Amino acid sequence: MTARTPTPVAPEITAGALPASRKVYRAGKRHPELRVPLREIDLHPSAGEPPLAVYDSSGPYTDPAHACDIARGLPRLREAWIEARGDVERRDGRPAGAGNSGLAFPLRHRPLRARDGRAVTQLAYARAGIVTPEMEFVAIRENLGRENLGRENLGREGLRAAAGRDGESFGAAIPEAVTPEFVRDEVARGRAIIPANINHPEAEPMIIGRNFLVKVNANIGNSAVTSSMAEEVEKMVWAIRWGADTVMDLSTGRDIHDIREWIVRNAPVPIGTVPIYQALEKVGGVAEALTWEVYRDTLVEQAEQGVDYFTIHAGLRLHHIPLTVDRVTGIVSRGGSIMAKWCLHHHRESFLYERFEEICDICRAYDVAFSLGDGLRPGSIADANDAAQFAELETLGELTRIAWARDCQVMIEGPGHVPLHKIKANVDKQLATCGEAPFYTLGPLTTDIAPGYDHITSGIGAAMIGWFGTAMLCYVTPKEHLGLPDRDDVKTGVVTYKIAAHAADLAKGHPAARARDDALSRARFEFRWEDQFNLSLDPETARDFHDRTLPKQAHKLAHFCSMCGPKFCSMRISHELRADAQKQGLAAMAERYRQGGDLYLPVGETGETAREP
Amino acid sequence: MTARTPTPVAPEITAGALPASRKVYRAGKRHPELRVPLREIDLHPSAGEPPLAVYDSSGPYTDPAHACDIARGLPRLREAWIEARGDVERRDGRPAGAGNSGLAFPLRHRPLRARDGRAVTQLAYARAGIVTPEMEFVAIRENLGRENLGRENLGREGLRAAAGRDGESFGAAIPEAVTPEFVRDEVARGRAIIPANINHPEAEPMIIGRNFLVKVNANIGNSAVTSSMAEEVEKMVWAIRWGADTVMDLSTGRDIHDIREWIVRNAPVPIGTVPIYQALEKVGGVAEALTWEVYRDTLVEQAEQGVDYFTIHAGLRLHHIPLTVDRVTGIVSRGGSIMAKWCLHHHRESFLYERFEEICDICRAYDVAFSLGDGLRPGSIADANDAAQFAELETLGELTRIAWARDCQVMIEGPGHVPLHKIKANVDKQLATCGEAPFYTLGPLTTDIAPGYDHITSGIGAAMIGWFGTAMLCYVTPKEHLGLPDRDDVKTGVVTYKIAAHAADLAKGHPAARARDDALSRARFEFRWEDQFNLSLDPETARDFHDRTLPKQAHKLAHFCSMCGPKFCSMRISHELRADAQKQGLAAMAERYRQGGDLYLPVGETGETAREP
Repeated sequence: MTARTPTPVAPEITAGALPASRKVYRAGKRHPELRVPLREIDLHPSAGEPPLAVYDSSGPYTDPAHACDIARGLPRLREAWIEARGDVERRDGRPAGAGNSGLAFPLRHRPLRARDGRAVTQLAYARAGIVTPEMEFVAIRENLGRENLGRENLGREGLRAAAGRDGESFGAAIPEAVTPEFVRDEVARGRAIIPANINHPEAEPMIIGRNFLVKVNANIGNSAVTSSMAEEVEKMVWAIRWGADTVMDLSTGRDIHDIREWIVRNAPVPIGTVPIYQALEKVGGVAEALTWEVYRDTLVEQAEQGVDYFTIHAGLRLHHIPLTVDRVTGIVSRGGSIMAKWCLHHHRESFLYERFEEICDICRAYDVAFSLGDGLRPGSIADANDAAQFAELETLGELTRIAWARDCQVMIEGPGHVPLHKIKANVDKQLATCGEAPFYTLGPLTTDIAPGYDHITSGIGAAMIGWFGTAMLCYVTPKEHLGLPDRDDVKTGVVTYKIAAHAADLAKGHPAARARDDALSRARFEFRWEDQFNLSLDPETARDFHDRTLPKQAHKLAHFCSMCGPKFCSMRISHELRADAQKQGLAAMAERYRQGGDLYLPVGETGETAREP
Repeated sequence: MTARTPTPVAPEITAGALPASRKVYRAGKRHPELRVPLREIDLHPSAGEPPLAVYDSSGPYTDPAHACDIARGLPRLREAWIEARGDVERRDGRPAGAGNSGLAFPLRHRPLRARDGRAVTQLAYARAGIVTPEMEFVAIRENLGRENLGRENLGREGLRAAAGRDGESFGAAIPEAVTPEFVRDEVARGRAIIPANINHPEAEPMIIGRNFLVKVNANIGNSAVTSSMAEEVEKMVWAIRWGADTVMDLSTGRDIHDIREWIVRNAPVPIGTVPIYQALEKVGGVAEALTWEVYRDTLVEQAEQGVDYFTIHAGLRLHHIPLTVDRVTGIVSRGGSIMAKWCLHHHRESFLYERFEEICDICRAYDVAFSLGDGLRPGSIADANDAAQFAELETLGELTRIAWARDCQVMIEGPGHVPLHKIKANVDKQLATCGEAPFYTLGPLTTDIAPGYDHITSGIGAAMIGWFGTAMLCYVTPKEHLGLPDRDDVKTGVVTYKIAAHAADLAKGHPAARARDDALSRARFEFRWEDQFNLSLDPETARDFHDRTLPKQAHKLAHFCSMCGPKFCSMRISHELRADAQKQGLAAMAERYRQGGDLYLPVGETGETAREP
């Protein structure tokens, strides 16, 4: 690496642990050098419970031991693993494109590329029977510390859930515990992907697949008024702090290359892009002027930077376009509309479709995963599940098989705007058409009538489509359709989608999902207010809302809810009931009731006929 | 009526039409005197579309012709209908309870009561084959102006939907158009209720049932710092402005009677209460001290004021209580916990259960609808669908049949906290157990881990349970579990639940639901920004969000989205595509493609094999 202009540590970056939380790392068994991050939330001693371990996508920024210096980038934790495989070589790399503005990232790493046409993808290794460090890393990560901490970490209720497996998974096969071998097998089958470009060694491996925790993506993009690269990095750091598992950089404009470099070098999560945006910049914004050569060079440029997955709208073919003419909202995918315009102008097949094998060759040389774009996704309830959408999906299935034949990892993008009753058909068709490749959907929005609340209209659809089998949910912010999201919007979008993803995990019967709900509910019932805040997805907001009604510190110990006051507190009364129950032996009575079905008659009650004799 | 101290018009009350909206009234055919309110949203002339008619629960407050004077209350529109039936008489009524604080409502109307033990309920009339003005009113209201305006009001897409009936209703039978006779039949079957106390003639009739539009309830309650009754009235006015169909007054404390009087006299929507709260006040907050007599007197007091539905936790029986001892969160219903404490203390059956026939006699004399409370609803994911919950539901079914036998209208309250995969069982069991009486659920919350966002955790569950057949959704605000909702929280809660209800209507295939989505999507596609704002559930927020990114007035005419800018605007490109399509005859090509299935090959394409030859 070559040092360039040094830049000071950026104060703009949000760092530090979340409340009552410690970053812990787990080592691997096959790969003892692994440091798999988890967040442990400490509970009040009165709880008598071990800390709750939760999935942690926030990277080193929430580790107080990490000295944040965005001008150096994050530690390159995967570099040794990648080089040890012996199938890559360093290149000089392509010169950065036009538009360098003195904002270049100060360090330059010479990019890696596969040697001799080798496939350096996690899919290729998985098929060869190799369990990579990345695979063991995600296995440990998905277990939420259960394997290492022992089963007591599940909590009382979690154990019950794990024993009974309470859920409906619609054919997903979530194991009791995730093993490295299970990860390998799922990747080998194409049912899961580990987006892990060999030029993004800073990323902590994560997995996207139906038999794993449902993931969330947050989109970020530069704004016209950005004054520093640190602000662009901070957008990513902020999104992952609240739980985004991957981040898509949708920046446009002249600094696009440099912005991306800053983001990738500082990203502990996979970064996705839509390369056609940059290609369009290179031809002055004129869609018709796009060429395969410009596009190809853009792919290589971004692959060398370390982009982990590319959205590629190769499924939109010339003959699909007429199917959109009767739509209420036409083509609403930016990439899709650009390619449609190109196809129509030249009246020829999309070069993305025609050159798809060549694109695969680029992706396999860097392990860039495909996110096959749904350029014809519906932009309104009226257009949901129409002929255009499903015709493109068929082509995406065809492309999936081509990519798999070249050892490339693939996920499939999905809608969009879909009413509740048409959501499941999307998952069913996608799984069938694309051979169970992971599905990655935007929402879907379940109604069009609430601009300003589209995180909610789409959060509803996201929870459902996640439950039905979607592997990753692309967030929607409150500003969707209206404007550019600010910091609060990004947080609201991410938290809303963490809710949707978690609701889906619960409903699928993920063996570790309910532990957090149960821990929080116990804290709620026992009036451990601090624990209730700390266990929540957004401790700051929970605490702030409580403070607005009951601001005093003493109220954090109050044995009543802030809504009802002491006299009407159902939970306080419930505790009194429990105390009575101890005295009166009600638990034993409950047992009698259960054994006798509906026949139990309470002691002392006379002359009363049981409901159903 | 007797005039007491006059009070000036209250400036605290939010009044005036929503943007681009006009209040219109439809007359009845059987009852020409009816004035059924609708809101018509005017669109830009370039749209070439008639105004869109939407359901309007906001009452006279959004009618500029209405002179708001909360000290007089709203016009008593139903009074003549009620008296014309000849089955009621005026009484002196009970003196107001303790706690009068000089804040009494200035006018006093002598309460009505059924004569000679007659049943004055909409159910009794329906069973007798009588189509009341209330029934015709709701029929017109549910049709959203379609009948009177003619079918062109459906809009292009609405017509298409009505023709095809695109939806999955899970056994609901929503008619193409709602007739007064259909309303009568649904009420007679007990599948729908029209909450319409004879002492609340100010209310505009509305209907709650699975075969009608899904409704939303908002809870309000007094706060400790309230300085005026106008503030309490404003909470109700604010909630219905954003779409609440009914309002529950959960006030407590010494001014409870007066607050309720102010609210009822000014409420154009049905008002619900939980009478046990006031009964408990009367016995100093000591649950064990409750008596049937105190409770009965409270019911009569509230029935005389005009409360339209009572939550009554008569389904919680002594022998159910032991079933809650192993729960994570015990009993979380306030009314439920109060009654459980009473039962356990006295070790005897609930007087609500034992005296249920007497309660029915009160309700039938005023037409107060039952909202049979779920005192044992789950308060956490862990407790969902457990033995306690479903044992109580069985009792609610038993009570439904008792109430029906006495001509009382009934709906059933439901949970609570339920993971996605256990939601449908709640509806299925409720419909089977309670003879299809309308279901009225709180959320349900689909995860426990997001305090501060429980409008969203529950909005997800609400959309689903509404789709499955729940007739009314009780809103949850962001402050749930944490504090008292403020004005913004109430609005957020109502709008979130309007989204859930509308998503459910769409999915059920309600023949008029999609018209608004389609109108808004057309506005979006045609860059009619003002129309897009005006058609949305919250025009103020939509406009505000757009202004924050593109503040200038000229941008309201911009032919690109605020997110993408002109170069990347998919919709702008779509329009260019449409223009090209006109030239190239792509519509005709699309037709060829459809007829030929997958065999269409675009003109000029050679050497390319079709996807599926």
